[in-house]
Amino acid sequence: MSSHTEQSTVTVLGLGPMGRSLAGAFLDAGLRTTVWNRTPDRARELVERGAVGARSAEEAVAASRLTVICVVDYDAVDAVLRHDAVTGALKGRTVVNLTADTPVRARDTAAWAAGHGIGYLDGAIMTPTTTIRTPAAVFLHSGPADLYREHRPVLDELGGTHTHLGEEIGRAAAYDIALLDVFWTAMTGYAHALAVARAEGITARELAPFAQGIGAVLPPVFAETAADLDDGRFPGDGNPLTSAASSMAHIVHASEAHGIDAGVMRAAEGLARRVIGRGHGADGFLRITELLSRG
Amino acid sequence: MSSHTEQSTVTVLGLGPMGRSLAGAFLDAGLRTTVWNRTPDRARELVERGAVGARSAEEAVAASRLTVICVVDYDAVDAVLRHDAVTGALKGRTVVNLTADTPVRARDTAAWAAGHGIGYLDGAIMTPTTTIRTPAAVFLHSGPADLYREHRPVLDELGGTHTHLGEEIGRAAAYDIALLDVFWTAMTGYAHALAVARAEGITARELAPFAQGIGAVLPPVFAETAADLDDGRFPGDGNPLTSAASSMAHIVHASEAHGIDAGVMRAAEGLARRVIGRGHGADGFLRITELLSRG
Repeated sequence: MSSHTEQSTVTVLGLGPMGRSLAGAFLDAGLRTTVWNRTPDRARELVERGAVGARSAEEAVAASRLTVICVVDYDAVDAVLRHDAVTGALKGRTVVNLTADTPVRARDTAAWAAGHGIGYLDGAIMTPTTTIRTPAAVFLHSGPADLYREHRPVLDELGGTHTHLGEEIGRAAAYDIALLDVFWTAMTGYAHALAVARAEGITARELAPFAQGIGAVLPPVFAETAADLDDGRFPGDGNPLTSAASSMAHIVHASEAHGIDAGVMRAAEGLARRVIGRGHGADGFLRITELLSRG
Repeated sequence: MSSHTEQSTVTVLGLGPMGRSLAGAFLDAGLRTTVWNRTPDRARELVERGAVGARSAEEAVAASRLTVICVVDYDAVDAVLRHDAVTGALKGRTVVNLTADTPVRARDTAAWAAGHGIGYLDGAIMTPTTTIRTPAAVFLHSGPADLYREHRPVLDELGGTHTHLGEEIGRAAAYDIALLDVFWTAMTGYAHALAVARAEGITARELAPFAQGIGAVLPPVFAETAADLDDGRFPGDGNPLTSAASSMAHIVHASEAHGIDAGVMRAAEGLARRVIGRGHGADGFLRITELLSRG
């Protein structure tokens, strides 16, 4: 049973896979949950489970003190929220925007909200829909601390860990961008590795156990290098940038010899070569961060 | 104490950081270890620990039935081994080449070895120097199974896990290339993420715990997608390629807005966009493997 009071209502705008998971979690928590989607058929299953299906976005946001929106990007957020009727209905209420986009867009949305008397928190969901309402879910939030404290009990019903990264509204989007950068770049490397492996007669099933081993090496590297990075140190002991560049060249040659596009690795190797050309070949690979930061 | 007989001698050619670790491991195991490096000062510490310092590569390989070579690439291997004196001294002996390079180079080296009556195994070391003689070390081998069985007791002294991937001599190098592809692409993504984070006022120490979380997501993804990949299925449930491309575009925009080169992510996003353009936007991200494989 829910421990929430009658005011603990919540509205969910956007019923893609993630929006449906969020709304389902609120329903499971016993919250009075109002839902709306641009194409209404997406609401059907949730309404059968007890959600209130609003006929319009303004009706939806008027039903709750807190509106959670999770759509494809901030263009879609604007398309839903930035109409007089919706903006008016939101006055004095709070929006938690769990849509992924850039810090600049988060700041722009916060300015719009402030201009219309709307409380605004920005957030990011770092884990797949299947993690919602499980301990594995990871939520990042930024914006006014008092607003975060006020709505934290409702957000907690989504499960997992919630971290308030600070009042600067772009912070959650900045973490989101950086972390997705790691994820999608790594996934691109894996896709490329699979193509190279296949060309060499190695199946995904054969490669996967070893790829898991390589993947498991990454988190300790992230942890071990952080302090050095912040202090501008890039120790290359045992694994200098020159070795990395040599590996990268092997990957480019081996894949192109099979007719496999190596554009991603070519771009990566180019960064390493530029840093080596500046005389830092004995440093560790993460010295390329400095090149990226300062050009 | 060693359980090896008097014949269990071993020669290590190449005394860079990895070569020194390998030679040190053989010494620790009580093997009679002969070492040689193009620049002899690298041998000093090992000789103080009991290694035999050979004055030439031919003297070194003549001292042992098994020679392990680990240098920067196969050009360096050729520069050491492909001289009449060395080739002659190796006749009837075995070379285990733990140098990293491409499958094509491994096959070429095997052909040279076969032409000169030299036993040849190719291998790859997937973990850093610090893992040698610990359970964390990972070695991949390929080549004649009988030769592998014969020398396995000596190789086992390097610690960790040793996997014989098959008789096809290029197999170890192919795995090596594919796994380093995952590793260096992911590291490039992390370096880029650090630059974006820094531009947003986020330190490496702040980002690292969350990056560790993202890194930990990868091995399960590799495991869970393998069977589907081999069967040509790319389910996009909950995370279609269109969402990935949208994330990638956000990363490109957010980094370029800070003057940070996004060439790697631009190339990666380009792959995603091409696959979407072919009508596969609802599929999962790993559908790009097919584009890479077939063009």
